[in-house]
Amino acid sequence: MLDQAADTTDIHALMADLGARARAAARILATAPSAAKDAALRAMADAIEARSAGILAANAEDVARAEEAGMAASFIDRLRLDDKRLAGIAEALREVAALPDPVGAVTAEWTRPNGLRIARVRTPLGVIGVIYESRPNVTADAGALCLKAGNAVILRGGSDSAASSAAIGEALRAGLEAANLPADAIQIVPTRDRAAVGAMLRGLGGAIDVIVPRGGRSLVERVQGEARVPVFAHLEGLCHVYLDATADLAMAVEVATNAKMRRTGVCGAAETLLVDRRDASRLLPPVLDALSLRGCEVRGTDEVRALWPDARPATEADFDTEYLDAIISVALVDGVDGAIQHIERHSSHHTEAIVADDEAVAERFLSSIDSAILLHNASTQFADGGEFGFGGEIGIATGKMHARGPVGVEQLTSFNYRVRGTGQIRP
Amino acid sequence: MLDQAADTTDIHALMADLGARARAAARILATAPSAAKDAALRAMADAIEARSAGILAANAEDVARAEEAGMAASFIDRLRLDDKRLAGIAEALREVAALPDPVGAVTAEWTRPNGLRIARVRTPLGVIGVIYESRPNVTADAGALCLKAGNAVILRGGSDSAASSAAIGEALRAGLEAANLPADAIQIVPTRDRAAVGAMLRGLGGAIDVIVPRGGRSLVERVQGEARVPVFAHLEGLCHVYLDATADLAMAVEVATNAKMRRTGVCGAAETLLVDRRDASRLLPPVLDALSLRGCEVRGTDEVRALWPDARPATEADFDTEYLDAIISVALVDGVDGAIQHIERHSSHHTEAIVADDEAVAERFLSSIDSAILLHNASTQFADGGEFGFGGEIGIATGKMHARGPVGVEQLTSFNYRVRGTGQIRP
Repeated sequence: MLDQAADTTDIHALMADLGARARAAARILATAPSAAKDAALRAMADAIEARSAGILAANAEDVARAEEAGMAASFIDRLRLDDKRLAGIAEALREVAALPDPVGAVTAEWTRPNGLRIARVRTPLGVIGVIYESRPNVTADAGALCLKAGNAVILRGGSDSAASSAAIGEALRAGLEAANLPADAIQIVPTRDRAAVGAMLRGLGGAIDVIVPRGGRSLVERVQGEARVPVFAHLEGLCHVYLDATADLAMAVEVATNAKMRRTGVCGAAETLLVDRRDASRLLPPVLDALSLRGCEVRGTDEVRALWPDARPATEADFDTEYLDAIISVALVDGVDGAIQHIERHSSHHTEAIVADDEAVAERFLSSIDSAILLHNASTQFADGGEFGFGGEIGIATGKMHARGPVGVEQLTSFNYRVRGTGQIRP
Repeated sequence: MLDQAADTTDIHALMADLGARARAAARILATAPSAAKDAALRAMADAIEARSAGILAANAEDVARAEEAGMAASFIDRLRLDDKRLAGIAEALREVAALPDPVGAVTAEWTRPNGLRIARVRTPLGVIGVIYESRPNVTADAGALCLKAGNAVILRGGSDSAASSAAIGEALRAGLEAANLPADAIQIVPTRDRAAVGAMLRGLGGAIDVIVPRGGRSLVERVQGEARVPVFAHLEGLCHVYLDATADLAMAVEVATNAKMRRTGVCGAAETLLVDRRDASRLLPPVLDALSLRGCEVRGTDEVRALWPDARPATEADFDTEYLDAIISVALVDGVDGAIQHIERHSSHHTEAIVADDEAVAERFLSSIDSAILLHNASTQFADGGEFGFGGEIGIATGKMHARGPVGVEQLTSFNYRVRGTGQIRP
């Protein structure tokens, strides 16, 4: 267990101390050279490998406890580590080390008529709190992304993975120390007391700048409801695929099937299929045949069932449901404007796709819908920081403040203005 | 008075209705062409001019009430409109019309190895709530900047300027209608009931995306303390000027005097002067002579008083005080690192300046301090959206989320990702 757990029993004092340590570490990290941060990330990867026996032993404790408690096999699978998964964690740390450093990047630069040169420069956000469920790899992934952007991080994983997270956390802190960076830049909350989460959501007296929840809907709902600091999150991904009358049929089949069925449990999976009423008889049956053949249950409106009778009847609630399962709701709409209207009413503002050959129709879709990610002729399952080239993501945000869509290292930064003059004074 | 005040007495129903109207208007504005928004802004300017008699009559009511209530002369001066001030308001509207439209601007664009072309594009934030004190010009300025960025706005001015704000608001709404945009894109809260402010701070049931308070410390404190939606604001501007041993003396005198004395009541005014201990005997006396000659009271530490005996003794509290007056606190520090340490401890993270000939020293200052604006060899009084070339500002933010420093039209936007493919599916 981490040393900061030592002998305090007061959860609030413990959390306040964590916050103060994180803030102090963030001040040092803010001006740490890229080379030091990258050296730390590589040293973390080395430490994960060097300590693999200890980490696997800690993980075995967590797994045994979960089995005793009768947790579901899928839950235990996500919890379990092995040599291959540990190698993956180490590899991901080295990939983050290889990313460009976002801190110090000049995102805009201009000169005023009075000769003042103004630059907008990326700076770290400060201290990030991550609250996640029982996937031990998040400890390393989230810690690495926050560090890369010059932030300190306080990690609070699920109770079920506490031993695994603590062991991984010690490896990460060893990596920081090996690069002469403060170990407190990455801290694991050393208690299973749920009051620790409440304290984080209140911001630890100003010590936490932003909270990132990673987990299911109930976790995100609690965080969004209670947090008194900004939150980067999405509550759900109720993603739509719209097939325009100008869609290529083969592409429509491919994209719709991939968007729904590649993985049904991810937030970028499609939940609703909208088809242009003008050409539904051409598009609908082959697409629904393909989905059905892949094992997808189809729920359609009466119009849909007239064209494809195997569909079960869809209720209004179906169009507001994130199934995260092999089920899709289907409706006909009046062209792209009908699709936009349907999406405005039902979307979670995450990701929507259009399949269309008509560029003007596609541009109307892309420019009219208020969602984080809009795709033309591509699958919604590309909603992912890795697929965007961000080298990993700490999550996907559907809010419109600061971060939106996949949150990679760039969006874990703030900025300031640096103004260079030659003695200018304001008249 | 505005029609939505008509016959409702329930403040919550009234505010919920305002929020719903704003949200509906925001959806239309989000895709309104630049030409329509700019036409509306110019029509607003025309309407301000055409209705000047009515606006001045409404303002005369406000002024008479304020005089009866015995308000201070400075307060009444800020409240009072005349032909020249109205012409200034109309001119400012035309200047906002002439700015480039931030909405639709592509801020990044790249192609993935699989051929997907990804663009990050600016989009409106949605609905902005502005809560301000009794300067009627804010009604037009804030309304114009929000509209330019494609946002709807709900404006709640001080009770003392209610008649002026309502009359200006009607002119703005007439301008929107003249351009066939929804009048509800700009709404003035039609009640003096303070419960309306509380409702706005709670976000009107999700209808308000961000709150901008404009006014004194107590207003900003209330807003920051109670708001359940993001806030763009600064509580105070405790700005520092640091004179390095490598500073040019004449420049040091000019910059320090301008930073403190050009206008003492603005948030970018300097409150503390820090001088490099290594060369204080050269720098300090002429700078303090110049400040004193301009009528500034000097409060210094014992070291400062040893070099310049006219200084009054400074207490520790002086270095945490935003005077907004002709008073400056002065201390010696050990070079740029000493200055950075002092600023870390006392700054409000608004604006800090260094005067130095040594570029490396200046870069250390600019890259080490966590404030919104850092200047080298220039006055802190440049902390202003107009001086930055933003064509106006809705305020200055010291938070690190989303907006920081002067908040112009660009920072009143969000963004989304638009991905263009040729049928890509995710393997």
